[in-house]
Amino acid sequence: MTSTTAGPDLSPTSGAQPVNTPVAPTADAAVTLQPVPLGASRSTGGFWFDRMQANRRQAIRTGYEKLETAGNLRNLRIAAGVEQGEAKGPIFMDSDVYKWLEAAGWEYGREADEEVLGWIREVTAVVAAAQADDGYLDSVQQVRGKGERYTGLHWSHEHYCAGHLFQAAVAVHRSTGDTGLLDVAVKLADHLVATFGPGGIEEVDGHPVVEMGLVELFRETGNRAYLDLARWFVDARGHGIIRTRFGVDPTYFSDRVPVREATSPEGHSVRAVYLTAGAADVAAETGDAELLDALVRQWEGMLSSKTYVTGGIGSRWDFEQFGDHYELGPDRAYAETCAAIASVQWSWRMLLATGEARYADLVERTLFNAFLPGVSLAGTEYFYVNALQLRHGAHAEEERSVAHGRRPWFDCACCPPNIMRTLSQLDAYVATTADRDGVPGIQLHQFTTGEVQAGGARVRVSTEYPWDGTVRVEVLESPGEFELALRVPGWAEGATATVAGQDVPAAAGDYLRVRRGFAPGDVVELVLPMTVRPVEADPRVDAVRGCVVVERGPLVYAVEQADLPEGLVADDVRVRVAELRDARAEHRPDLLEGVTVLHLPVHAAVGAATGPLYRPAGDDPAPQAGDATQVVPAVPYYAWANRELGAMRVWLPRA
Amino acid sequence: MTSTTAGPDLSPTSGAQPVNTPVAPTADAAVTLQPVPLGASRSTGGFWFDRMQANRRQAIRTGYEKLETAGNLRNLRIAAGVEQGEAKGPIFMDSDVYKWLEAAGWEYGREADEEVLGWIREVTAVVAAAQADDGYLDSVQQVRGKGERYTGLHWSHEHYCAGHLFQAAVAVHRSTGDTGLLDVAVKLADHLVATFGPGGIEEVDGHPVVEMGLVELFRETGNRAYLDLARWFVDARGHGIIRTRFGVDPTYFSDRVPVREATSPEGHSVRAVYLTAGAADVAAETGDAELLDALVRQWEGMLSSKTYVTGGIGSRWDFEQFGDHYELGPDRAYAETCAAIASVQWSWRMLLATGEARYADLVERTLFNAFLPGVSLAGTEYFYVNALQLRHGAHAEEERSVAHGRRPWFDCACCPPNIMRTLSQLDAYVATTADRDGVPGIQLHQFTTGEVQAGGARVRVSTEYPWDGTVRVEVLESPGEFELALRVPGWAEGATATVAGQDVPAAAGDYLRVRRGFAPGDVVELVLPMTVRPVEADPRVDAVRGCVVVERGPLVYAVEQADLPEGLVADDVRVRVAELRDARAEHRPDLLEGVTVLHLPVHAAVGAATGPLYRPAGDDPAPQAGDATQVVPAVPYYAWANRELGAMRVWLPRA
Repeated sequence: MTSTTAGPDLSPTSGAQPVNTPVAPTADAAVTLQPVPLGASRSTGGFWFDRMQANRRQAIRTGYEKLETAGNLRNLRIAAGVEQGEAKGPIFMDSDVYKWLEAAGWEYGREADEEVLGWIREVTAVVAAAQADDGYLDSVQQVRGKGERYTGLHWSHEHYCAGHLFQAAVAVHRSTGDTGLLDVAVKLADHLVATFGPGGIEEVDGHPVVEMGLVELFRETGNRAYLDLARWFVDARGHGIIRTRFGVDPTYFSDRVPVREATSPEGHSVRAVYLTAGAADVAAETGDAELLDALVRQWEGMLSSKTYVTGGIGSRWDFEQFGDHYELGPDRAYAETCAAIASVQWSWRMLLATGEARYADLVERTLFNAFLPGVSLAGTEYFYVNALQLRHGAHAEEERSVAHGRRPWFDCACCPPNIMRTLSQLDAYVATTADRDGVPGIQLHQFTTGEVQAGGARVRVSTEYPWDGTVRVEVLESPGEFELALRVPGWAEGATATVAGQDVPAAAGDYLRVRRGFAPGDVVELVLPMTVRPVEADPRVDAVRGCVVVERGPLVYAVEQADLPEGLVADDVRVRVAELRDARAEHRPDLLEGVTVLHLPVHAAVGAATGPLYRPAGDDPAPQAGDATQVVPAVPYYAWANRELGAMRVWLPRA
Repeated sequence: MTSTTAGPDLSPTSGAQPVNTPVAPTADAAVTLQPVPLGASRSTGGFWFDRMQANRRQAIRTGYEKLETAGNLRNLRIAAGVEQGEAKGPIFMDSDVYKWLEAAGWEYGREADEEVLGWIREVTAVVAAAQADDGYLDSVQQVRGKGERYTGLHWSHEHYCAGHLFQAAVAVHRSTGDTGLLDVAVKLADHLVATFGPGGIEEVDGHPVVEMGLVELFRETGNRAYLDLARWFVDARGHGIIRTRFGVDPTYFSDRVPVREATSPEGHSVRAVYLTAGAADVAAETGDAELLDALVRQWEGMLSSKTYVTGGIGSRWDFEQFGDHYELGPDRAYAETCAAIASVQWSWRMLLATGEARYADLVERTLFNAFLPGVSLAGTEYFYVNALQLRHGAHAEEERSVAHGRRPWFDCACCPPNIMRTLSQLDAYVATTADRDGVPGIQLHQFTTGEVQAGGARVRVSTEYPWDGTVRVEVLESPGEFELALRVPGWAEGATATVAGQDVPAAAGDYLRVRRGFAPGDVVELVLPMTVRPVEADPRVDAVRGCVVVERGPLVYAVEQADLPEGLVADDVRVRVAELRDARAEHRPDLLEGVTVLHLPVHAAVGAATGPLYRPAGDDPAPQAGDATQVVPAVPYYAWANRELGAMRVWLPRA
């Protein structure tokens, strides 16, 4: 532990002390890039800043209240013996508390707020009081388990809750300097080290996340036993170590194939990708190149056949699982919001390890199109599931159905506080720093208006991204020779750039690297082409055959019923690619808190409403659409279902 | 009760006694057609006869053994107090016993077999011993419930098991004359009448089937209280009467919308359609035209937007439910075998009520393409789920996955004995009898080689259907003026017919009705065109856009990896409709117990294996297939996965 102050200690981090950011590799870690601390990477305006502010102003407070009303804190008080009753909610109720604490921690790091600090300390006290003398902590298990521990680890989520506690404790400690929650975490981690691994209980939790938590706690405390246990958990898995009760096979638990042998993630998407993210942490801190190679292979497998065009992952409703390769149907897309978050966490770690732009590309795609749809513009209602299509007349069944619209909370409330903690740490994913050949540098991975300070330099980023493609980086302070790298997204064919007014090449899918003796006032400007891009899928994605998605910049667009004229149902919209390319973009500050809409020429399907369900096939190609072109607005997919809920589709059939 | 003999009584039924068939409307019932008793409708050879014989020779025996090894009979013995231990298996374990008893009963009716009768009596004794003094019977509940009854009726399946018992008791009584099982059923039914309905427990079981069971028991015994209770169950439902525990909403239980108001079945597919089938029985016996109208509307809703091209229903894996309208993806098609059986039962009742050919059309499509795929050619291995596509490299997860191939039994073994009882009663669905304007008649709904005796006439049907389209009906006995009606399937445009050598019109989708003074030796011949028919779906079925199915006769065909040349994966097969129409059919007696294969010209998708998952859209239409035509065999879908398991697809993308 590095701090003993009880109050906030916001002095700059120094030397071996981990930087104030969620993923802080040690000085010895095998990484290419180093994170820039929160505060040193700081959004000050624009798209993401607005979302972060909504999170700060609305969600964190609401979340704090929900922890009480949903019973999470009560469970902990019952475990502490200060309240009586039965535990409420799913077995992993504590994890919601920890995810909220993590969110509050990072928020306090962004901007000190005594009310938030008060909440953190109040909740920390509730958590600490529930902890058993030997460090064990899991309120639901303590209350329901009649003294039993770890007897059903495939489902009990005891390590899962611990992992989220560790991440929260690191956040609170790094951001506030408070050691209260860290003390609880260390006590629990020491208990796990004493209890699990070779010679102890040789089992793993059904739901990974403890691996990431343990590595970060190692980074925070320097206690290598935590890293060793994390590595053991990563390698023990995949050999059928989890007993398969209830007829659920090891696939679901990422326990069928060892991490080092798997070619793509499978089973429960959040479990699978929290595991690979934790494995990436282990690989970084142990310098395990073989493990990193395996993770690169898995990531490529995911991207090439198991990822929605939005970046979302996990297509199956049943058991929230990855489907087979190319099983990516839009109507029943599960694409859990938490899985998108897991994907961002994994890709971020792969980016730190390798420095390759493709990982930041997927972070961007996922944040805009798979993560952000999970929360309302107001910041207080959530999608658990993110389908890419809602049919006209769809009936809402269970609470996760998109046909319900976003909801304030869930019985299984994993997603809301996960969104909160992600928005609160979003500045961490904007930039990194690295020396190349002894020259310090800043790498800009995501584009948001703000400042970045690292490697002796300070730059100001100004952009209207994602609505406009111009990213202006002005050097405010310079150490002299310096390398400024800006990611040119893979979609940005035709990007251009200038350095101090001179054109420089900017290849899509790589970093634009400008190395020179920068002086304050120097400007690097990157211009990404904001054309309307019709995109199609590999023909093996059967469910979207003959369809295209419309993209502009980093955004995937959707046609929503609310924008369609009377008589035209979203289900029946048809498009022609050549016409889409010329679609007009219009920024509408009044709409959906400001969005650029695309005015798409569309055709209405002819004959859809007549004839039997199955009919003699027409000659190729089937005449399915008429020529009565209309122009209708498409909105960014993330913003859908913020008005009257109606039919929606991302994949548009060709006329 | 109509018989008190303990042994088999196979004397012809008379007067008011119900005929020996699963659905036997009373003389007062509001039906258009009357069933022909088993025995009077009798297959003697050909396609379905072979399947029935496999069922008789293999499955009934295997099922009998499984009831012991899977623990079903042991549960009953524990409930009877003659064995000790905990109940095994799901809450509805008794229903497997009853479905097997029903199958064995109808089999005995087809052909007396002392060994089968011995099994029936042995199992009946086990069931009878478990029954409580007041008639209550549900072994799992008796053993696990600690004396509680009906406290969790939304999930306990107590009425569900009762319904299957009633159907089994009717089968055994009608076929063997034994009253043992009927006595148990009557005692339980009397207990239900005394316990449920107005003034009693006003609740309904989460899983319908008791409605059908009660009506048939009313038909068998004449006790109108059973019919009244069935009607009460039908009408009580749909008003949220089932408390929604566990976050599962009323939709799942068909409890969201009253039967009389619903426009299509929704929720759990087997529940929903067992309910509508039971409602059809109620409508028939109460002469409730409003209820029948509502069922016609629901059936039309199902057929027009919630039915696979195979006739299968229920597209969602999660909760085994109907999807939204047009949500009919082939890869994750659930299409539970039991749901196909439920659909056949419902359509059969609608056919009896209305006499309309479309109901028999759906029975045919479903039997060949949604029911039959559920069982191996050997008759001993089963699909629970009937996907219409299996991708190359798909990984088998849970036991229901098609990627496992068919399996000998399941933890939840609803499908295997359901298949057994359906095959054992298949002759019941072949023909009906009815007077029109005082003229007696026989209606042939399904085509199988055999004899039908009804209305004073006896006819012999000879056909190689479904491989050949000629159906020859020879009059063996005639009462003089008589009407012979043959269904001309909706797919059979261009059908021709001759009566005593003279051409008569035969319109597809209706009955060919021949009324004349028939004499023995007269022949009516129907020739159905066995062309290869490419079929496409309503464009709102997004998941199969740009694809066609190949049909021939009543069969849906599939391309299976086992038939493809090295280097061509089923996933990449492309077709052109004009080429398909000319595909050559070849009967292969050596293949899959004799099938007609279709030699389809196919193209291989070009470029599928290269490029990113999502890519700039090509101009319309997208060039996705090359011109290297190959010819590969397609096999009837029902026969797939009887060889080496590999990729398979029913819907073939257009080149």
